[in-house]
Amino acid sequence: MRLGEVINLFFMDCLGVNEKNNLTIGGADVAELAAQYGTPLYIMDEDKIRENCRVYKTAMEKYYGNGLVLYASKAFSCLHICRAAKEEGMGLDVVSGGELYTALKAGFPADYIYFHGNNKTEDELRLAVENNVGHIVVDNKYELELLNALAEERGGNVGVSFRIKPGIDAHTHDFIMTGQIDSKFGFALETGEAEEITRYAATLPHIDVTGVHCHIGSQIFDVAPFLLAAERMIDFIGDMKDKHGVLLTELNLGGGYGVKYLTDDDPVPYGAYIQSVADTVRAAAKKRNVAPPKLIMEPGRSITAPAGITVYTVGAVKEIPGVRTYVSVDGGMADNPRYIMYGAKYEALTVRNPEAERSKVVTIAGKCCESGDILIKDIAMPPLGPGDLVAVLTTGAYNYSMASNYNRIPRPAVVMVRGGKPSLAVRRESYDDIIKNDV
Amino acid sequence: MRLGEVINLFFMDCLGVNEKNNLTIGGADVAELAAQYGTPLYIMDEDKIRENCRVYKTAMEKYYGNGLVLYASKAFSCLHICRAAKEEGMGLDVVSGGELYTALKAGFPADYIYFHGNNKTEDELRLAVENNVGHIVVDNKYELELLNALAEERGGNVGVSFRIKPGIDAHTHDFIMTGQIDSKFGFALETGEAEEITRYAATLPHIDVTGVHCHIGSQIFDVAPFLLAAERMIDFIGDMKDKHGVLLTELNLGGGYGVKYLTDDDPVPYGAYIQSVADTVRAAAKKRNVAPPKLIMEPGRSITAPAGITVYTVGAVKEIPGVRTYVSVDGGMADNPRYIMYGAKYEALTVRNPEAERSKVVTIAGKCCESGDILIKDIAMPPLGPGDLVAVLTTGAYNYSMASNYNRIPRPAVVMVRGGKPSLAVRRESYDDIIKNDV
Repeated sequence: MRLGEVINLFFMDCLGVNEKNNLTIGGADVAELAAQYGTPLYIMDEDKIRENCRVYKTAMEKYYGNGLVLYASKAFSCLHICRAAKEEGMGLDVVSGGELYTALKAGFPADYIYFHGNNKTEDELRLAVENNVGHIVVDNKYELELLNALAEERGGNVGVSFRIKPGIDAHTHDFIMTGQIDSKFGFALETGEAEEITRYAATLPHIDVTGVHCHIGSQIFDVAPFLLAAERMIDFIGDMKDKHGVLLTELNLGGGYGVKYLTDDDPVPYGAYIQSVADTVRAAAKKRNVAPPKLIMEPGRSITAPAGITVYTVGAVKEIPGVRTYVSVDGGMADNPRYIMYGAKYEALTVRNPEAERSKVVTIAGKCCESGDILIKDIAMPPLGPGDLVAVLTTGAYNYSMASNYNRIPRPAVVMVRGGKPSLAVRRESYDDIIKNDV
Repeated sequence: MRLGEVINLFFMDCLGVNEKNNLTIGGADVAELAAQYGTPLYIMDEDKIRENCRVYKTAMEKYYGNGLVLYASKAFSCLHICRAAKEEGMGLDVVSGGELYTALKAGFPADYIYFHGNNKTEDELRLAVENNVGHIVVDNKYELELLNALAEERGGNVGVSFRIKPGIDAHTHDFIMTGQIDSKFGFALETGEAEEITRYAATLPHIDVTGVHCHIGSQIFDVAPFLLAAERMIDFIGDMKDKHGVLLTELNLGGGYGVKYLTDDDPVPYGAYIQSVADTVRAAAKKRNVAPPKLIMEPGRSITAPAGITVYTVGAVKEIPGVRTYVSVDGGMADNPRYIMYGAKYEALTVRNPEAERSKVVTIAGKCCESGDILIKDIAMPPLGPGDLVAVLTTGAYNYSMASNYNRIPRPAVVMVRGGKPSLAVRRESYDDIIKNDV
């Protein structure tokens, strides 16, 4: 960011400034929440999360009709968010026994849960089958046969779809048409693997084949690769019908919709994604003479990331003349490993006087005993000193969910703000929590 | 690794093969431990850990005398390892309130604990002061003044040393003499910052200045940078005595000794490190006419990494003709994020028939819903199928300590083997543990 630039940072529309000149999220005073709950603190605007759910849901109803939007809970999973997603009429995408367990404990209806993963264990599949989870997105033949056996053991059938590699690999503004075959996930289209498994599954007595799924990447800012994927998948559905008489009634196009992390990021409005995809799916279905499938989409990051911030307290400030100024905060890679893992970039605001002139370029560092523990490298900020509060933006996805206890640092609390009022969604870990499983 | 090559993999001397043709660690059958405790499972040879402690301790006694070896618990911390380190007469290096709390709960004597970190919070410093932690390794002026105030509040003095940047940055076989000044840690020598803070500290009424500390890098395979750092630090000790009459009686040279992750890695024997450093410190002290300081070293990785393995069960095996074969296991980046974080490389063995011909190059992938969730890319292994057990080697450091619940995957148990007998050091997390702080 350029020195002095401020106002564009308020791209998170759940943020504001109140009469005390403090940052607000969902109308709540961030400094007050930090005082009440301590720092580091994840704060999420629950109204915004619900609004994001509705944007997708409404667009699906308006532009397509026969569809379902799943919240991809790997972005951020806890009992609270599962209950909220349920109340908003979303389905749920889970990728492990732990996410499934959380959903079930939150009372999420099992027939609206889709279970993903490249290597679900037998225990996980059993948990799913025993709880009548509606849809297993099968990744490989081993899993398919295991599922058939588990369903037989239980005396029933299980509904499956297949994760397909459509040969499109999309990231941000680029996408490539080859290469994605080199993935641990799914069945390749072009090798005939997808066709073979679908035919085979149709012969298994305890498997109900319902549909196909693909996921082409993350943080995508373009509609084109989704449209291409939709066409290819409809072609596959058409081929399976024409060549084998196998009817695939659900088309799940996964997630990956880009979110705004930086001022220059410019995501396509999510409703527009769905509109374009809906048009494409309908047209392709008509062309291939198949009934338009039930359309499923799986936003995760785009539901929660733009609704969350992380608040830290500044400790030591170290100015190395001619080199760099390090502003160390009371969190870091343990609560947000995305910089050290992916080189991910974030914006930040001061909590008090967030519109102050950003007069100095600093590096915001974490407190872990590791040189790479950085949150933001080289960001223009107002002057900062011990005790100041800093909010890192767009941290509502893949922060709490990826947090560790590295250096035995307790994980922060998660506070949800609804109607301007905070409530605790996840309690802060204590030191006793950290040693709870030590013998 | 080249196809067919096997025997060099047994570079971890705590590993062996028993009469059932199963891999053993510390004499215990790894397949039996996997059956008993489940997978994924961290297994550590406690005898080897203790032997590694003794290698350092004995060398320190033999080659130097007035010294102390600290176990750097950020490599792997739990109650069990703190008790073992205490029994072996080690000191302890902690980097957070959580590691300190663990040490205190394990009954570790507070005067043998050294507290590190670039941004210790007031709460953490208070915990240390209230528990009479012997040595605070001060990183910045803000912390120094906070400590002085806390000690005054409590009515006593606190012993501190200073983290100094000696201007040497060492990694594996390379080291550079500049640049390390750009670090969030410590006080620079060349800017006069180190001198200034030490003088200033000597004027504070509740601070006892005892020594200086430096840490020049990680996974270093050469003695030379340690010797250079030792000379520079002794020069600083000499300068402080000559110019200001401030006596620094402890020299802490940190950690960073390389460990063998791959067959080609060739670490210097740890006793030889200490011998060379001891000679250099004595000679430099004589030259600068200062009393040889108490010498402190802080091995962490080299104590536990070579004593630990992680055992996984293979699930799906996906052969993509002409591209790659993915062998998916029941763990991954949640229990070992070092591949996705650093591109770290590991070796692996099959648990049953570990000396079988390694006839196929495969990629060992984790079960997280993320393409980058890989444990080992392109390793020659014997044929693998569902239910097979794979041991990833040298995982005793920075695996459990960096583990997350990403995808809400429970963290594995840690089993310690001593005298051939296993005991549980850390219990496996349950799904209920995962949701325990959810409201």
